[in-house]
Amino acid sequence: MSRALPSILLTDLYQLVMAQTYFELDMHETAVFELFTRRLPPQRRFLIAAGLEQALEYLERLRFTTEDIAYLSGLGTFTPRFLDHLLTVRFTGAVHAMPEGTPCFADEPILRITAPILESQLIESRILNICHFQTLIASKAARVLLAAQGRRLVDFGMRRAHEADAALFAARAAYLAGFDATATVEAGRTFGIPLAGTLAHSFIEAHDLEIDAFRNFVRSSASATTLLLDTYDTERATRRLLRLLEELRGTPQRVQGVRIDSGDLGAEASRVRSLLDAAGHGEIQIIASGGLDEHAIEQLVAAGAPIDAFGVGTALDAATDAPALDMAYKLEWYAGKARRKRSSGKATWPGAKQVHRVRDAQGVLLRDRIVLAEEQDPGEALLQPVLRQGRRLTPAASLPAMREYARREILTLPMQLRQLAPGGEPHPVSVSSALQALAVSLDRNDA
Amino acid sequence: MSRALPSILLTDLYQLVMAQTYFELDMHETAVFELFTRRLPPQRRFLIAAGLEQALEYLERLRFTTEDIAYLSGLGTFTPRFLDHLLTVRFTGAVHAMPEGTPCFADEPILRITAPILESQLIESRILNICHFQTLIASKAARVLLAAQGRRLVDFGMRRAHEADAALFAARAAYLAGFDATATVEAGRTFGIPLAGTLAHSFIEAHDLEIDAFRNFVRSSASATTLLLDTYDTERATRRLLRLLEELRGTPQRVQGVRIDSGDLGAEASRVRSLLDAAGHGEIQIIASGGLDEHAIEQLVAAGAPIDAFGVGTALDAATDAPALDMAYKLEWYAGKARRKRSSGKATWPGAKQVHRVRDAQGVLLRDRIVLAEEQDPGEALLQPVLRQGRRLTPAASLPAMREYARREILTLPMQLRQLAPGGEPHPVSVSSALQALAVSLDRNDA
Repeated sequence: MSRALPSILLTDLYQLVMAQTYFELDMHETAVFELFTRRLPPQRRFLIAAGLEQALEYLERLRFTTEDIAYLSGLGTFTPRFLDHLLTVRFTGAVHAMPEGTPCFADEPILRITAPILESQLIESRILNICHFQTLIASKAARVLLAAQGRRLVDFGMRRAHEADAALFAARAAYLAGFDATATVEAGRTFGIPLAGTLAHSFIEAHDLEIDAFRNFVRSSASATTLLLDTYDTERATRRLLRLLEELRGTPQRVQGVRIDSGDLGAEASRVRSLLDAAGHGEIQIIASGGLDEHAIEQLVAAGAPIDAFGVGTALDAATDAPALDMAYKLEWYAGKARRKRSSGKATWPGAKQVHRVRDAQGVLLRDRIVLAEEQDPGEALLQPVLRQGRRLTPAASLPAMREYARREILTLPMQLRQLAPGGEPHPVSVSSALQALAVSLDRNDA
Repeated sequence: MSRALPSILLTDLYQLVMAQTYFELDMHETAVFELFTRRLPPQRRFLIAAGLEQALEYLERLRFTTEDIAYLSGLGTFTPRFLDHLLTVRFTGAVHAMPEGTPCFADEPILRITAPILESQLIESRILNICHFQTLIASKAARVLLAAQGRRLVDFGMRRAHEADAALFAARAAYLAGFDATATVEAGRTFGIPLAGTLAHSFIEAHDLEIDAFRNFVRSSASATTLLLDTYDTERATRRLLRLLEELRGTPQRVQGVRIDSGDLGAEASRVRSLLDAAGHGEIQIIASGGLDEHAIEQLVAAGAPIDAFGVGTALDAATDAPALDMAYKLEWYAGKARRKRSSGKATWPGAKQVHRVRDAQGVLLRDRIVLAEEQDPGEALLQPVLRQGRRLTPAASLPAMREYARREILTLPMQLRQLAPGGEPHPVSVSSALQALAVSLDRNDA
C-alpha cells in the first residue's frame, strides 16, 4: 500500500534558508553529496545498509503543498519569489546506492546524490533521518541473527521503539536483516512481513485461576495457540498446561508453543522442556523473551538451552547498546570541483566516490577499497545507479528477495566480523592513492 | 493543526488476539491498567512525564476502518463476528494522569486507564509507544536544561532521531522540558515551537572562498544571520568575518551570531569571543554544537566558556545514554478484584493507585507516597482525572503553559536530584501499608 509520507517540512530550517540563498544567488550547478558513517560504534564490526527504498520514495514524491508554502510564508524568513519557486521544486537528480542488506564499513558511502545544489541540499535532513534509522536497526538485527544460529527470531519491540514510525521501520529493517516475523500488525500490512504473537500476562491475571485462562484462550482460538507460563510460577504453570493438554485430547484444539518472559530463561526452558517431553509433548515449541539481546541469545544458544524462538524487543527496536550512528551527508563536489570539509575530527574524503569490494573464491569478503568514482579497479562496485532524472531505473526489489541477499551476506561474513565481542581486527578498508592525492591537493588551497 | 494519526493497526498482534478472546468469552468487565517505570536507568535521577496529549488524542480518535478490518480478515486469525464488533469499538473509559511536565520516579503510575477490558487491553502497545518516547526525551532534556544554567537551548536532532515521528515528538518533549527552540520545521508548524537555524558546512564548501560564502549568505538574507566558523579553520574564519563586518558597516545587513561545531568548543569560543570583542562586536552571539550532551554543557558552563546558546542533537533526540525506559502498562484490577503479576523481577503493585507528593514550605519536593486510589492522604494527588467516558474533561493546556510548569518543577527540584552524576540518594518514595497489605493478601492466593 502507498503510505502517507511525512510532510516535506520534516526538515531542518537551515536547509530551507540555504535553498533560498542558492536560489537568490543563482547557484544552480550540480552538487554531489554522499551519505556515510564516520566511525562505527565500538559495539559494531560492520553495518548493514538499509532504508534505500524509503529514501527513493521520498525523492520521487518530493514536493511542497500550498499549505506548506503558506506556513513558510508566515515565518517572515522567505521571499515570495523563493516560495513561488519552492512550489515547483522536484528532485531531478541521480542516486547511486549500495543495495539494501549490503554490509558496509566506516567512511564508505552507501548513497551518492547528484543533483542541482538546491535539491541535493534540501533533502539532507530527511535522507539522513530515513537511512540512519534503518541502517542502525538492520545492523543490530544482523548481530542477533548471528547469535541465534538458525533459531526463529521475532520483533517484539513496538512499545519501546521511538514513536510510531520507528516501530514500523524497525520491523522492516529487522526482517530485512534476517528476522522471521514481527508482532507489529501495521508492519505486516505495510511490508508483508509475517506476523507472530502470543498473549500477555494481563490475560492470565484477568482470570481467577491460571488454568481457566489457559483453557479459555485455547478454546476460543481458531488456530493453534501459544501460552504464557511465567505470570506466577513457571513450573506450576507447566503442570497446569499438561492437565489442560489431557483435557484437549481428542478435540481439534492445539497448543503449538509456550512463552517464558522472565527469570533464568535457560533454566526455565530446560525445566519446561523436560516436563513437556516426559508427557509426550515434544511438538510444543518454547519461545523466550524479556530483555533479550544478541549477547543473552548467544549465551543461551551456547548453553544448549532448548529454546526454539526468541522474541527481541527493546534492545532491537531502540538499538539500546548503540542507539545512533555517526552518519553524515556531506558535499563532495560542486560546480566541477571536488570539495572537502576540514573541521577538526570531521574531515571528509572529497569527490564522487565508489566502493570496490574484493572477495575470495568462496565469495567471502577480503577487503574494500574506497576510490574515486571514475577510477578503474578490479573489484565489485557496490554503489549502483538506482535513480536518474528523478525516476527509478528499475522497480524496487521485493523485501523477501532483499532479505535473502542480506541473510546470505551476513551469515557468510568472515569469522572475525561475525564475532559479537568488541575489539579484534577491523575489516580492511583502504583509500586509493588517487583519492588521497586529491585530498592533499585540496588542503593546499586556502579557501 | 490536526495530524493524520498512525493506523490503529500500529499495535502488537496479541492485543487483537486477546481482544477477540475477551469478546468470545463475554469478558466485558472493567479493568484498571497503569503505566509506570519499573526502575530508572542509572543515568537518571528523575523522569518527566510527557506524551499525555498525544495519548488522549489516540484514545479519542480510536477506531478501525473497513480497510483495517479487511486486512485483519485476510490473516485467518479472527472470526467475522469479532471483526464486525471491532468496527464499533471506541474508547469509552476514563483516564487519570500526571500533568505533562511532572517529575516522577520508579513505580509511580503516570497514567491510569479504567475501561472495559477489551478496550483497556487493546490500547497497551500504542499508549506505551507514545508515553515512553516523550517521557524518555523530556527526561533527557530536563538534564540538559539543568546543565545549561539559563543559556539558550535548541533541538538540532532531527537527522538522527529514530525516523520521522521521533523527530517531531522529540522536538515537542524537549520544548516541554524547557528547550527554547527547534530546528525541525514541521515541529514549528504542528506544535508552534519557535524555530531556529543557521547554515551547514556544505554552503561554505560550495564557494571557492569562505569569505564569499559569508558575504553571499549575509547579503541574500532578509533577516539577521548566523554564520558557521569551523569549516576549515575557526580563527581564520573569524578574521574573515571581521573583514566582512567592516564591509557591511552602514548597510542594513546584520550578523547576529556565529556557530562553532567542532574542536575544543570552549577554547574556540573564547578565541572567537576575544576577536569579536576586540573589534567592538560584543553583540554577536556564539552558538556551540557538535556532539553535545548535558555533561559537555555542564563542563563548558563551569569553565565559563563564552557560549550563549547550545544546539543539542543526537544525544537529545535519541537519548543516547539511556535510549529506553523500563516502562510497563500493567493490569492492576479486573471485575472487582485487585490483580498482581508475580513474574521474577517484574512483580507489580496491585490495585488502582494514586501518587501523593509532599513538599516543603517553598514548594520543594520532600517525598512521594504510592497509595491505593481510595486512601486518604495529606499530600497533593498527582494523578488527576483528564478523560471520562472517552471524552476529555477539559481542553488541553497550551504547550507554552505546560513548559512553564515543567521548567519551574525541574529548576526547583531538590539539589540531590539536580545533580547530573549517577549515584547519591534517590528521591524517597514509599508504599502505603494498605497497598503492601493488599499485595501480601493476593500472594496468599495461588491463582
